[in-house]
Amino acid sequence: MEEGSLSDPWPRLKGLPMGTTVELAGADGRTWQGTLVPSHELSGERIVQLKLDSGYNVGIRVHPADRLVVLERPARANGEPSASGASPAPEILPGHVALLTTGGTIASRVDYRTGGVRPVREESEILSFYPDLSRDGPVHVIPVFDRLSEEISPPDWATLAAHVAEAFRRGAHGVVIAHGTDTLAFTSAALAFQLRRLPGPVVLVGAQRSPDRPSSDGPGNLQAAVRLARHTTLGEVVVLMHAGLSDDRYAIHRGTRVRKMHSSRRDAFQSRNGPPLGWVGAEGVVLDQPYRSAEAGEVTVEPLESRGGILWSFPGLDAASAARFVEPLRGVVLAGTGLGHVSSIHLPWIREAVKRGVVVAMTTQCLEGPADPFVYATGRELLRAGVLYLDDLLPETAYAKMLWALAASTDPVEVRRLMKLDLAGEFSPRHSVGGPA
Amino acid sequence: MEEGSLSDPWPRLKGLPMGTTVELAGADGRTWQGTLVPSHELSGERIVQLKLDSGYNVGIRVHPADRLVVLERPARANGEPSASGASPAPEILPGHVALLTTGGTIASRVDYRTGGVRPVREESEILSFYPDLSRDGPVHVIPVFDRLSEEISPPDWATLAAHVAEAFRRGAHGVVIAHGTDTLAFTSAALAFQLRRLPGPVVLVGAQRSPDRPSSDGPGNLQAAVRLARHTTLGEVVVLMHAGLSDDRYAIHRGTRVRKMHSSRRDAFQSRNGPPLGWVGAEGVVLDQPYRSAEAGEVTVEPLESRGGILWSFPGLDAASAARFVEPLRGVVLAGTGLGHVSSIHLPWIREAVKRGVVVAMTTQCLEGPADPFVYATGRELLRAGVLYLDDLLPETAYAKMLWALAASTDPVEVRRLMKLDLAGEFSPRHSVGGPA
Repeated sequence: MEEGSLSDPWPRLKGLPMGTTVELAGADGRTWQGTLVPSHELSGERIVQLKLDSGYNVGIRVHPADRLVVLERPARANGEPSASGASPAPEILPGHVALLTTGGTIASRVDYRTGGVRPVREESEILSFYPDLSRDGPVHVIPVFDRLSEEISPPDWATLAAHVAEAFRRGAHGVVIAHGTDTLAFTSAALAFQLRRLPGPVVLVGAQRSPDRPSSDGPGNLQAAVRLARHTTLGEVVVLMHAGLSDDRYAIHRGTRVRKMHSSRRDAFQSRNGPPLGWVGAEGVVLDQPYRSAEAGEVTVEPLESRGGILWSFPGLDAASAARFVEPLRGVVLAGTGLGHVSSIHLPWIREAVKRGVVVAMTTQCLEGPADPFVYATGRELLRAGVLYLDDLLPETAYAKMLWALAASTDPVEVRRLMKLDLAGEFSPRHSVGGPA
Repeated sequence: MEEGSLSDPWPRLKGLPMGTTVELAGADGRTWQGTLVPSHELSGERIVQLKLDSGYNVGIRVHPADRLVVLERPARANGEPSASGASPAPEILPGHVALLTTGGTIASRVDYRTGGVRPVREESEILSFYPDLSRDGPVHVIPVFDRLSEEISPPDWATLAAHVAEAFRRGAHGVVIAHGTDTLAFTSAALAFQLRRLPGPVVLVGAQRSPDRPSSDGPGNLQAAVRLARHTTLGEVVVLMHAGLSDDRYAIHRGTRVRKMHSSRRDAFQSRNGPPLGWVGAEGVVLDQPYRSAEAGEVTVEPLESRGGILWSFPGLDAASAARFVEPLRGVVLAGTGLGHVSSIHLPWIREAVKRGVVVAMTTQCLEGPADPFVYATGRELLRAGVLYLDDLLPETAYAKMLWALAASTDPVEVRRLMKLDLAGEFSPRHSVGGPA
């Protein structure tokens, strides 16, 4: 602890790095303890922003007579030179966790000009919001994009996969990807098919509430994600998010089996067709479902095709519109009703598309349970028309997998064979994919 | 109870109406008690099909030495002339429940030729499967269609609505619609907007398992639906389906707030954004949420437009495809990500479509929680482009409502105003629809 100064603390406060823990004792007898975080653009002069232990941020007007004590300097990690300047830390530290940032709520804050939430622009801003991040070891921040996740598209998935592979090649123990929640589950599924022989965990994490709201799940989620990324044996792409109502329990979802099932709740993400792989909580990291182990050797990145799509069926969808939608595609995932059905008015265009080599796959828009062609006459008709039934793959996962399979082969027979292999734990064990390929 | 005959029971058995409860005592000492149901097409000669109290169906080979006792004749209802022929029942009985059949699993059985499940072709076949149906009062069966629900389209919703109105006009106390589960929730939402001033409940019901499987939920669901249709005060379109794992508890879902959330489970249907309206169980019919009361006067039927659609957004959906999909439509419901977002690449076609009078509405593909344009910059941009945010309407409900609103007015401003009114309890009370119309 450093001595409190009796002179005006404002100039000194302005010089302290974000993440410094301070105590401010006011002339009015009140005392504040917290971590320095960036002030809002429109905060007045002499206002300092503190993140309290309670998780709340407060803006405090600093009076010349206030007393300032610096309790703790922020951890030096992330390739920042040490304060002394004598022995600069290596750019990449051994056993580090690579934190790839992409934008999204987990790295966003309220824009006080528009009233909306905007992605943060500065890497340092993220770090200063999360001063505890490197508590258990070094974290290396790698900004990849700066955009909300609804703007992330399949070519971005390829970019992200390349960054993950590069981080592992440079010695990362595990990789955390801070990502907007809107399309987080699409990205996790895509990475699961693109990345092969993972030497450690790839943990996608997001926040449903922006970091300057007291109810924000960002700090907890990110802390737990970094903790999970230090797990020694997990070799999968997973999504880590708040679980249930408790504040200290985080679910580890398999990247191919998870979906955002609520637009605003903190526990919006759910594993479908089975429980989460495990949990991060008071008891540490617990993996209570079978998982793929980390593999030795070089991680590889597989490419994606772009000419795929998802077509969600509904009563009244006319055959001409559906055919037109599928026309430019090499593969389409139908989200059919129930066990995987669409009206028989779609049979002609499906037959025609299959004939010209389009892979037409079926999933269920129920988002749980299998697509199964063998229960109803409709399913058998669709199967005969050449539809590939994908059991309990989520439509989103089936789409990501199809972009991968279409890139792996130009032969529809081979694409169909690849689609039915269990490559990333995407099929639940109780189901099996039926029907001819 | 009638005397058992000692002569060969086969000719007599063949003459008994389906639904008769019999006891068959075999020469081998075994005794079967059950209700006669139709035999499968490929059942051999001298095989009788009995539904046992356990719910199982058994096929029993009838020997000439077996002893037959007729325990109970089926209830005479449904306009069937009495056995004596002296006093034929009126075609429509006072206080009856009208049971509209449309096909689907609840009225389907295994086709032993193809191995698939097919809709039953005969009205009498349905009645004979459910001998207890008219236990508490007369049930009048009105066959409307004979098809699986994936084949039901918006013009069929209009036909169904007309039949419901006609049934009430002819004195029905309540209406039950037996419907395939695949698109049951679409139909329930459509009926909720088409039918005004309901004088009694309209209960949609389905079965996830076909009636000749011992695990079938058809008999229980249908029985509970008829019970609910006799409820004196409910004036809403609801969906009644199996709830949870218990065999004697049925959930009453509001027709505009329900979705099939599993492709095969018996309790696949879930109320979204709030609890079910109530339950049917051992305690009778319990409505523990506010509901709309039955209204006096004439029920009216409102028309539907067909030029509407649902467009499910996903990363990689290209703007040209989306624009082409929307081109022939007067209104489209976007199922966006998170709080109702699509990539900004879609802004140009959205602006252009809105300019030419297309109503572009936003819902969330999370299927729970609100679509809200005021949290992120993306939402504000979409709002400025003219997107109508529909709070927590399910995409399916929003689509059904849009077909109704488009038929009600040719003016997009009026269509937008109508879309935001709470007409059938479709918005959950905790949310409000924000933004300018």
